[in-house]
Amino acid sequence: MITSGPTRQYLDPVRYLSNASSGRMGAALATAALELGHEVVVISGPVQIDYPPRAHVVPVVSTDDMLEASQEWFKKCDGAIGAAAPCDYMPRFVESQKIAKTGAPLTLELIETPDVVATLGQTKLPGQWVVGFALETEDRRFRATVKLEKKHCDLIVSNGPSAIDSLDNHVELLDAAGDVVASVHGSKQQVADVLLDHIQQRLIGRVSGTKAPG
Amino acid sequence: MITSGPTRQYLDPVRYLSNASSGRMGAALATAALELGHEVVVISGPVQIDYPPRAHVVPVVSTDDMLEASQEWFKKCDGAIGAAAPCDYMPRFVESQKIAKTGAPLTLELIETPDVVATLGQTKLPGQWVVGFALETEDRRFRATVKLEKKHCDLIVSNGPSAIDSLDNHVELLDAAGDVVASVHGSKQQVADVLLDHIQQRLIGRVSGTKAPG
Repeated sequence: MITSGPTRQYLDPVRYLSNASSGRMGAALATAALELGHEVVVISGPVQIDYPPRAHVVPVVSTDDMLEASQEWFKKCDGAIGAAAPCDYMPRFVESQKIAKTGAPLTLELIETPDVVATLGQTKLPGQWVVGFALETEDRRFRATVKLEKKHCDLIVSNGPSAIDSLDNHVELLDAAGDVVASVHGSKQQVADVLLDHIQQRLIGRVSGTKAPG
Repeated sequence: MITSGPTRQYLDPVRYLSNASSGRMGAALATAALELGHEVVVISGPVQIDYPPRAHVVPVVSTDDMLEASQEWFKKCDGAIGAAAPCDYMPRFVESQKIAKTGAPLTLELIETPDVVATLGQTKLPGQWVVGFALETEDRRFRATVKLEKKHCDLIVSNGPSAIDSLDNHVELLDAAGDVVASVHGSKQQVADVLLDHIQQRLIGRVSGTKAPG
């Protein structure tokens, strides 16, 4: 299972909070996983890109939607890759009508949305695995290590904001001990292929040979 | 000149406030205007759709960007159609690094962005005209009339939230007196064709015959 793309948190029927995640990394990971012979389900926020036709795509809008669909589908999957950038704050109150401009400042109280990858990491069954992504603008490796542990990930991919809505990516892959096991720079498809090779060897290979390629 | 699509107001390098405007209405208006023999410049926020190749497209991100480009290009244009949905609130403070989650609520102070169409309406020269769009979820006709006057528009198009990111639209066209002169329901291209006919007759036709079709 791959989560992909952004989610949206609406303030009112028109305005929302989001980010520029394109879903390209998720699509590249889906392609790489299909190439290795896996079945793939993609839980995707609103994106414009196309996922590979052989992937089963479940469209969602909000982070709650993504969490709910991910929990449901994860039960049927061997592992999860959290390549989405779920909107991690939501307005405490959502207005049912468009907020009218008054000329005055508008104070918006935001609360955290549920953490999709952390929830999967905390509820994974023996044999299931979870790979997270950490996007940080500073202290990248340290913060990735913190997220790895907090979210109970088996591997975490650390990348920077230049990855967003870009064709390329530059990532570090950290194992559960926090050691950097790969550093990859290239197109998102090249990066995805290398990541899937590591996932295949380190996580899928260990699961009593199920779904091994060939 | 046609403004089109959403704009984005970033909170930090990753997260932004926006809306789901697709740019389809702007693209349809550009097509209709080109069909009538006009030269067209489109000031567009980030969209995935393609504008007609004969339109000159100026890409922008924020509302300030859109205002700046619109003011510059409007000098060379006979009139402006404000089909964009500029993000009308922006954070008072923009963080230079990604805001880290702490578990606590986040209070975001939003201030209004400049009003692109109102600025064009207030600064238009004799002979220049401005057509606005009003998107309201309630009291649509009344609020459109208020915006018409406040923004010094020559015509205003009133539509509802179902127009956003949709293939169809259902609009009312109000003249400078606030009278409904047309009610149109159909594909965005059909709606755009009717709107351009009205603009042609009511605004372009009156300007001493310049840029009349044929």
